[in-house]
Amino acid sequence: MQIDLRLVPEPPDASLISDRTVVVIDVLRATSVMVHAMAQGAGEIHPVHTVEEALAKRETFPLGTAVLGGERGSRRIEGFDLGNSPREYVAKIVRGKRLILTTTNGTRAFRAVSRGKEILVASFLNVQAVVRRCLESGRDLFFFPAGDRGQFSLEDTVCAGMIIDRIVSRGKTSFLITDQAQAARFLYQRFQTNLVEALRISDHGKELMDLGFEEDLRYCARTDLIALAPTFRGGVVTIQGEME
Amino acid sequence: MQIDLRLVPEPPDASLISDRTVVVIDVLRATSVMVHAMAQGAGEIHPVHTVEEALAKRETFPLGTAVLGGERGSRRIEGFDLGNSPREYVAKIVRGKRLILTTTNGTRAFRAVSRGKEILVASFLNVQAVVRRCLESGRDLFFFPAGDRGQFSLEDTVCAGMIIDRIVSRGKTSFLITDQAQAARFLYQRFQTNLVEALRISDHGKELMDLGFEEDLRYCARTDLIALAPTFRGGVVTIQGEME
Repeated sequence: MQIDLRLVPEPPDASLISDRTVVVIDVLRATSVMVHAMAQGAGEIHPVHTVEEALAKRETFPLGTAVLGGERGSRRIEGFDLGNSPREYVAKIVRGKRLILTTTNGTRAFRAVSRGKEILVASFLNVQAVVRRCLESGRDLFFFPAGDRGQFSLEDTVCAGMIIDRIVSRGKTSFLITDQAQAARFLYQRFQTNLVEALRISDHGKELMDLGFEEDLRYCARTDLIALAPTFRGGVVTIQGEME
Repeated sequence: MQIDLRLVPEPPDASLISDRTVVVIDVLRATSVMVHAMAQGAGEIHPVHTVEEALAKRETFPLGTAVLGGERGSRRIEGFDLGNSPREYVAKIVRGKRLILTTTNGTRAFRAVSRGKEILVASFLNVQAVVRRCLESGRDLFFFPAGDRGQFSLEDTVCAGMIIDRIVSRGKTSFLITDQAQAARFLYQRFQTNLVEALRISDHGKELMDLGFEEDLRYCARTDLIALAPTFRGGVVTIQGEME
């Protein structure tokens, strides 16, 4: 099994990922929100790029069935139902609903890898579920930390490294791991006894703390709280798993 | 003092480095060769991009004053005096000579950052000399691991992280460190008790071992053997230091 990773979120060639399971990670906060919202009973999630797209998408669904969420500059968007804190996505609001979500880095990441064979939504919250799905798939793996405005992001890379570390430690197959994937694993090993530290010292984490979102950092650093590995397919995140 | 780094060797905008001290690192093996050759008494080093350029450059110097070195596919180039192993660059051959060097990653790296205010040639061999020069310069720093065919390289990043770690530990000023520079520092901390391991597990290191260059890995992982911080200016590496 080959394991590759992009430390900097440059969109990969389609040929590189068309046979692979791709793992998208945006710990602060898009994929954490997605995983959390799914656990709270959201029916499906539509990541979209612009505020206009989000508003237009809502019009395509029956009144009252869709919830708008997301951020710009880390803050809730005017006229939207929810911001980008996992704790806002409670069952009372999201159960059985369609979520339409627009965030700075997360939605861009899904577009960049949309040609992947299977695309998993990963965060610290659902590490073990993603590990299990990766091993089940038996495919080569491609990790895509969403990054911070096109740049490297420490917390996303550490989360990828944690998934890789568990896969390599538990898998019975042999692995061919690129330097970038190795580096993520080593970065995880540096922080494994104190994951929240990686979120606190990252550029994006510092910004969120300045804006009063420290509680989000603590929550997004919790591991294995949720046993779901949502997948992204045809523009929609669901928990149905893979349909061949 | 700001400290930035590129985990993937994308050429930076000139505006980002025109006021900075830039540190170029190609542990396996271009900058290790340069630092070593300077310590053996080479007068100056001309990194050039192609074999043709190297041959043409030699014609511009008096007969017998220039030595040709470098590699393609890690091997010596036909008709060249030397390959790309530091151990070939002994005083008997290089003292007082001009070296003309063409390598796969190293020369590309120097071109990518040629707009830097000051450009230092770094390797494990001369870590402390580079640390000292960085602190003396008082400028913001930009680290540029040369990478491996345009990709991330573990050994170059670990070396950058070692320099950053020493600067941050010893400096009396406060530092503003980007996520990428932090990541390099953490990767170094992972390998600090066994640097040669980082070279052995890297993609490029494995290739060199397969070709029989394991001794080069051991030599290139030695630290603080050479107290020189060569600079690259106007296409030439010298040990004169900075000329304003």
